[in-house]
Amino acid sequence: MPLKTPGEYKQSLRDQRTIYFRGERVGDVTTHPVLGIAVEHAAIDYAMAEDPRHRGLAVVDEGGREFSRYYHLPRTSEHLLARSELIAASTREGGTLVVLIKEIGTDALFALHLVSEAMAARGVPAYRDRVRAYHERCRDSDLAVAVAQTDVKGDRSLGPSAQPDPDHYVRIVDRRADGIVVRGAKVHTSVVTNTHELIVLPTRAMRAEDAAYAVAFAVPVATPGLTLVASPFGAFPKDPFEYPISARHKMMETLTVFNDVFVPWERVFLAGETEFAGPLALTFVKYHRFTAVSYKLPLLELLVGAGRAVAEMNGIEAAGHVREKLTRLASYHTTVAALIRQAALQCTVEPPGLAVPNTLLTNIAKYQFASQYHQAVQMVQDLAGGLLVTAPAVEDLRSELTGPLVAKYLGAKAGVPTEDRLRLLNLISDLTASDFGGYQEVLAVHAEGSLEAEKLQTYREYDFSEPVAYARRLAGIG
Amino acid sequence: MPLKTPGEYKQSLRDQRTIYFRGERVGDVTTHPVLGIAVEHAAIDYAMAEDPRHRGLAVVDEGGREFSRYYHLPRTSEHLLARSELIAASTREGGTLVVLIKEIGTDALFALHLVSEAMAARGVPAYRDRVRAYHERCRDSDLAVAVAQTDVKGDRSLGPSAQPDPDHYVRIVDRRADGIVVRGAKVHTSVVTNTHELIVLPTRAMRAEDAAYAVAFAVPVATPGLTLVASPFGAFPKDPFEYPISARHKMMETLTVFNDVFVPWERVFLAGETEFAGPLALTFVKYHRFTAVSYKLPLLELLVGAGRAVAEMNGIEAAGHVREKLTRLASYHTTVAALIRQAALQCTVEPPGLAVPNTLLTNIAKYQFASQYHQAVQMVQDLAGGLLVTAPAVEDLRSELTGPLVAKYLGAKAGVPTEDRLRLLNLISDLTASDFGGYQEVLAVHAEGSLEAEKLQTYREYDFSEPVAYARRLAGIG
Amino acid sequence: MPLKTPGEYKQSLRDQRTIYFRGERVGDVTTHPVLGIAVEHAAIDYAMAEDPRHRGLAVVDEGGREFSRYYHLPRTSEHLLARSELIAASTREGGTLVVLIKEIGTDALFALHLVSEAMAARGVPAYRDRVRAYHERCRDSDLAVAVAQTDVKGDRSLGPSAQPDPDHYVRIVDRRADGIVVRGAKVHTSVVTNTHELIVLPTRAMRAEDAAYAVAFAVPVATPGLTLVASPFGAFPKDPFEYPISARHKMMETLTVFNDVFVPWERVFLAGETEFAGPLALTFVKYHRFTAVSYKLPLLELLVGAGRAVAEMNGIEAAGHVREKLTRLASYHTTVAALIRQAALQCTVEPPGLAVPNTLLTNIAKYQFASQYHQAVQMVQDLAGGLLVTAPAVEDLRSELTGPLVAKYLGAKAGVPTEDRLRLLNLISDLTASDFGGYQEVLAVHAEGSLEAEKLQTYREYDFSEPVAYARRLAGIG
Amino acid sequence: MPLKTPGEYKQSLRDQRTIYFRGERVGDVTTHPVLGIAVEHAAIDYAMAEDPRHRGLAVVDEGGREFSRYYHLPRTSEHLLARSELIAASTREGGTLVVLIKEIGTDALFALHLVSEAMAARGVPAYRDRVRAYHERCRDSDLAVAVAQTDVKGDRSLGPSAQPDPDHYVRIVDRRADGIVVRGAKVHTSVVTNTHELIVLPTRAMRAEDAAYAVAFAVPVATPGLTLVASPFGAFPKDPFEYPISARHKMMETLTVFNDVFVPWERVFLAGETEFAGPLALTFVKYHRFTAVSYKLPLLELLVGAGRAVAEMNGIEAAGHVREKLTRLASYHTTVAALIRQAALQCTVEPPGLAVPNTLLTNIAKYQFASQYHQAVQMVQDLAGGLLVTAPAVEDLRSELTGPLVAKYLGAKAGVPTEDRLRLLNLISDLTASDFGGYQEVLAVHAEGSLEAEKLQTYREYDFSEPVAYARRLAGIG
Repeated sequence: MPLKTPGEYKQSLRDQRTIYFRGERVGDVTTHPVLGIAVEHAAIDYAMAEDPRHRGLAVVDEGGREFSRYYHLPRTSEHLLARSELIAASTREGGTLVVLIKEIGTDALFALHLVSEAMAARGVPAYRDRVRAYHERCRDSDLAVAVAQTDVKGDRSLGPSAQPDPDHYVRIVDRRADGIVVRGAKVHTSVVTNTHELIVLPTRAMRAEDAAYAVAFAVPVATPGLTLVASPFGAFPKDPFEYPISARHKMMETLTVFNDVFVPWERVFLAGETEFAGPLALTFVKYHRFTAVSYKLPLLELLVGAGRAVAEMNGIEAAGHVREKLTRLASYHTTVAALIRQAALQCTVEPPGLAVPNTLLTNIAKYQFASQYHQAVQMVQDLAGGLLVTAPAVEDLRSELTGPLVAKYLGAKAGVPTEDRLRLLNLISDLTASDFGGYQEVLAVHAEGSLEAEKLQTYREYDFSEPVAYARRLAGIG
Repeated sequence: MPLKTPGEYKQSLRDQRTIYFRGERVGDVTTHPVLGIAVEHAAIDYAMAEDPRHRGLAVVDEGGREFSRYYHLPRTSEHLLARSELIAASTREGGTLVVLIKEIGTDALFALHLVSEAMAARGVPAYRDRVRAYHERCRDSDLAVAVAQTDVKGDRSLGPSAQPDPDHYVRIVDRRADGIVVRGAKVHTSVVTNTHELIVLPTRAMRAEDAAYAVAFAVPVATPGLTLVASPFGAFPKDPFEYPISARHKMMETLTVFNDVFVPWERVFLAGETEFAGPLALTFVKYHRFTAVSYKLPLLELLVGAGRAVAEMNGIEAAGHVREKLTRLASYHTTVAALIRQAALQCTVEPPGLAVPNTLLTNIAKYQFASQYHQAVQMVQDLAGGLLVTAPAVEDLRSELTGPLVAKYLGAKAGVPTEDRLRLLNLISDLTASDFGGYQEVLAVHAEGSLEAEKLQTYREYDFSEPVAYARRLAGIG
Repeated sequence: MPLKTPGEYKQSLRDQRTIYFRGERVGDVTTHPVLGIAVEHAAIDYAMAEDPRHRGLAVVDEGGREFSRYYHLPRTSEHLLARSELIAASTREGGTLVVLIKEIGTDALFALHLVSEAMAARGVPAYRDRVRAYHERCRDSDLAVAVAQTDVKGDRSLGPSAQPDPDHYVRIVDRRADGIVVRGAKVHTSVVTNTHELIVLPTRAMRAEDAAYAVAFAVPVATPGLTLVASPFGAFPKDPFEYPISARHKMMETLTVFNDVFVPWERVFLAGETEFAGPLALTFVKYHRFTAVSYKLPLLELLVGAGRAVAEMNGIEAAGHVREKLTRLASYHTTVAALIRQAALQCTVEPPGLAVPNTLLTNIAKYQFASQYHQAVQMVQDLAGGLLVTAPAVEDLRSELTGPLVAKYLGAKAGVPTEDRLRLLNLISDLTASDFGGYQEVLAVHAEGSLEAEKLQTYREYDFSEPVAYARRLAGIG
Repeated sequence: MPLKTPGEYKQSLRDQRTIYFRGERVGDVTTHPVLGIAVEHAAIDYAMAEDPRHRGLAVVDEGGREFSRYYHLPRTSEHLLARSELIAASTREGGTLVVLIKEIGTDALFALHLVSEAMAARGVPAYRDRVRAYHERCRDSDLAVAVAQTDVKGDRSLGPSAQPDPDHYVRIVDRRADGIVVRGAKVHTSVVTNTHELIVLPTRAMRAEDAAYAVAFAVPVATPGLTLVASPFGAFPKDPFEYPISARHKMMETLTVFNDVFVPWERVFLAGETEFAGPLALTFVKYHRFTAVSYKLPLLELLVGAGRAVAEMNGIEAAGHVREKLTRLASYHTTVAALIRQAALQCTVEPPGLAVPNTLLTNIAKYQFASQYHQAVQMVQDLAGGLLVTAPAVEDLRSELTGPLVAKYLGAKAGVPTEDRLRLLNLISDLTASDFGGYQEVLAVHAEGSLEAEKLQTYREYDFSEPVAYARRLAGIG
């Protein structure tokens, strides 16, 4: 089956999916005033495959068969680097907002390949074939795939089976001859309003008593019983002049509810094997944080570029403190980029032959990104000035009455049109001082694992034994 | 004349003032969907004077005559502390947004008292009496007063009289027997859409050739030729459930244009005396940064309180990293509060007997606040979790269809109603991840002077001579 | 009894005290090449009482009776401020090294007053009179008093009575009619090699099973069974040209061993009342951290002064990054000073009428000091340059052969003698890059409680209830 | 000629070199109590070439001819990586102190190759052949080579030829038929007391009027007129138990004076071509900072290892704040290591075919290392505890009188011998709190360029054009 065009992608989303937005059932996601923006944004993925500038990166030709590079199983550092570049390139097209409709799904698929292989090695071979078949179907139909991992969790001090409400983690409520029935809900599910498929993964390690919660599977989004409650965050009408990024680019987030959803066995990838729940959760995260850092690079590039551009427009680029800030921004961008590159180069290859990005370096890259993001925002706001939040409206610029005043008084350096200055300020305002800016800040801290999760993983992955031995040797201790 | 009631305040704003919002002339500011919110917010000042809980702080009784404490000339540390407390208390009522309709005006008046006194001592006595008379009028009529200081500046590498466009700093274009005519524009003028008066101050030191730009004066807001172009930043319809602060509290910012505005001499406070332009700009800032730190305290309190409350709701308050973050937030709040208190206690008293907050300590307090604000936001977002930007809408909670799902799945710890949790998350989202959060971030960096301005002032005010002498003594150098 | 002279102080130290230094018993501490330096340093305290420049601060006249201000019970903020100033002034005389021979002892005495008063209120009156009598004796004899608090602790995961070696916390091994017998050891005991008395306090809260460890008492340093093993850290012959501070100023630290030491009842201040062990440990710390921040101020002043002086000598004081660093150093110094001042001003007065510095502010002041110290050192080293560790010796400067080369080539700016430059560099080298610099770094982190201890105390003392209530109110939660 | 053995190396240093230490002429550097330690340390380089564990890394076999890898011209990323590994390995053998006797010299040689090639391309071919010949001689005789770059500089606000004392930068005072005569002095010259050769490079870009100062050359250390004044910093007798690193490892720093030193033409590499002075200074730095980061890695490894080991011994490794600190240390080490690796991988190859490490990444790596070093020291000191500066002497441990007390009371966790604990504490004390610790701190900030130099270079090397174009595109600006 050929690659989908953007048009085919949009057409294929017109199905029976159950989505609520501000209390109302959404009919056609492609024409909805809010969800439709997310659909257009997601279509970037399909458009890139048709665009000669990106096709070489976006599409893989394997033995004459073409498919989206996302579905290509990485077997070497080079494969990981190419994947990373594609993620960055599509996010760059997306105005610093990740497209994600194949990135996250394939992160999950790679994890399923590795874990099902390990299960096969431990005498549970069934899942491996299902994973392969499902992977091929998604690849060959060029599908968009979301992932739901984070359970609602209820009381965080209690495990899945100890919750007062047993549905606070997604669980198997019935096992039938033809499949399983699941109940529960996930939060922070990105892009599922406009994907074809949804993969569900466990969010943590499970104990023996949590067997019903050790579950992974995939369903079409239009499956009966699957209800998506979309978040309205930042969803108000936006003029592209004032919100040059977020008026055009959007990612939907949902509360994803499973009301006794039936899943046939061929779509079930874990069903009670508690010892594999933790590894599956963790392996997904290994790929997904690599994806995350890859898609953060255009954001960092834009912080540098917008900071430098606005400093030039404001005529302050020669000031010592301005150069200091630009240097720190440049260093921030370069360091994160170098770390994720090293993570690809220092990958490990694990059965059945998949390259896994270096976990230590990936987590450090993610942490370096996340822990310094707010400080970077501060620097860019500092360079831009207070007009970020006090500038007039586009209507004031266009109006016959106020337009001349705005043009006269908000022109800065000679040669810079006032409109250009306002456009750049609006870009920075959208990027750092609007709900979209807040979204980026919160995602920096929480998406793909919190700062604490990254620190924990760093602590676990770093090999302290050599350094300790070195210290002991120098100290003269046996 | 008695104190104004909130109703009288609102009524008094219905005049001929010229305001544009999104390209259209605003009729009645009190009923305008956006500007009206700012009016209601500002009315807090008048309401507090009537409120028994606040009256003792808000109103001063001097020889049987009652007036707003803002107009009280500070002569001691205690006066400064009381003023600081009042600013903090009204900002607290304002949901962390400063009310400002008397704070900033009296900051300017105090500076005018000091500088006109210095001018009198240097043989220019006329301004002193005008300042006193104007101060009494504002006080006795209980007026709201805005201040416009920041010129649009044009090319920042050039001084006022060297600009290609001579109007890029506000200047005197005509001197008449009865007054002066001024032209130019100011930016970042806060609250002027809903004050009675506007005081205009120079933004920097001036040289001899800049005499036309060394100008300070006051005009009623409804003066002919004064045009306000209001910023639409963050001005879209907001549900108070989703935006618990910013749906109710707002401060307007304007581009403030002087199209050949006539100002009678009794309202002119500087007109060509270039050597006093710098001192006036700086003295205003001394008071205004003290005001600024005072009004930031409720914001810091809320960051601590919201961080702690959400940690408790999420059931994570015992975790080590959570306590670390809460400790850092508490320390941040306490340090800034102690520094501004010390600034009042270590004040100087200058002719004609006004207490000036310690400039070194005020600038350090402001810098400590501003430089750590984004990091504090990061910590609160970290404690709150991703639901800040992925939670469902209020309509989803209220809907019969989705309400039960939301209630069931977004309940966290036992005993915490889901609605309470969403309310708290929305508070933090509004405070840190919305346009209002962006506004607070940008204000932290730019309002009342940038981080660099505060550092520069700190460097100038710190007395290095004693430390250097100590170092030389210990080094054994003569 | 009159105040002691420096000579009388030194003479009075020639007794039977048992001190080991590098494995050998020390005879006369006043003439020992290493311990003698510490004696001279400590004598600063007695010299200041005779020095007209300091007498007003150092000596209190109460009803015609003069005594050292250290022994003055603080009853008001002003008393605390005067005490803080005295501590800073004597440390300044001591070249940034605290004198400590009365500071720490009176910190302990104040804590004993407060806790013995609380014990009396709870029906255990005996200790109160002993504390008062002992306090008067120390005061009236103008004694130097050390304090031993930190037990050696053994396995830190176990409490006192659970240690494999029961002596790993100091304990009562016998109760006799005339007193108690104690055994165990304390570490990090400062200045005890040159004080008359040693007060012993518990290091932590105790449980019921730890009754033998709930012990506080005082002994003369020359008591039988008390063995001091002095640390040789940084104790090598130093030329005052190369080590302008540490060649002249020194504080001894000891491992302090109690080999079945007998203590008569009148010197016993706690003996088994476990519920008071924690409060005593904590109350001591409240005073002692206030002392600590007070004595750190000259150190911060010197960092600023040395940084500025060397920048001037190097001719770089106008560079942007240099001003940035000096501003940060100045801000650091000012902030810590303001916080400790505010801690005195916001003191509480507790039975029997003693002023206790505000614990929250004291801990935050200490934390602000300690957490930024290494960064401040980095900045001063940055300003000084590599000659800190590569400059020639004083002999090279004095030598006929190399002296002219050194003078010619290491002269920097015109007008600055090479010798002055080397002296200033040596001062900074001693202060930041020698064992003395290391001592200051380690003390910053560990003395009077670690960074973690200060954070813990901040967390406990900050009142979160008001901020949480404010957050809930703004969120619209009941 | 074969590789030198350690014995041959030492023997070869017994020549007529003119060195002063504390005002006295040094006879035999190999037996001098201070300089001899540096000789032993440097001999590590020769020992590694004989050691089967290191030979593969230390020695290159090119067409059957063996020579030290340092002299191998890097032509690929792999060559740079191998060089980096060798530098790290020898520094590791050197107890975190770089050996440097071939590292720095070859950094200079590589720079001379590149610049003399550029000079040849611009019509000045003579230098290229001299550089090649000199390189071959050093390589084939397996020589140790120091580099003197930093001039004494005099008044830093003035250029070389504008100094009141014309000798404040090294300059050519005579040009003769057979060579040049140079005068002046350099500071911070490392390891030259125990190398065979000294290469002299200009320290900065020169203008036309500075032609006499645009000079580069090489001389044997025993050249007449070359006087070395060695720094006594940290040079006192040290017991290896108390100073486990610095009692055994040392690097001498000198003031290096050229008293009309004659240099024959074949050893002159720049003599008046001012336009190449800056490129030569900068190209040397490109290699030398790459060397610097390579040799810092064992230091970072030791900070991690010592921190972890002491946390374990203290029994606190499970505490949250301890894990936080260890994680930050591990992340610091890993980030710097990844950046320098990436600098090798993203190298450029420049005529005549030499691989130059990526300058942007190298500078960022160096800055990341240097800017966080003091904070890392703070963390390790925090983990180790106050005994770093209060522990007894080795004699106290060995003494019959105090030994049992020390053994009993300073034992911590069961199973950890007290001696081991003291050894580890002494290691950390030596590393962070002694003059050696101070040396490391100052080197972190100043060696191979200051923090400011690295920031400046980062600013210059980062390509802002792409990010600015991206910002403009998203802003909708033409």
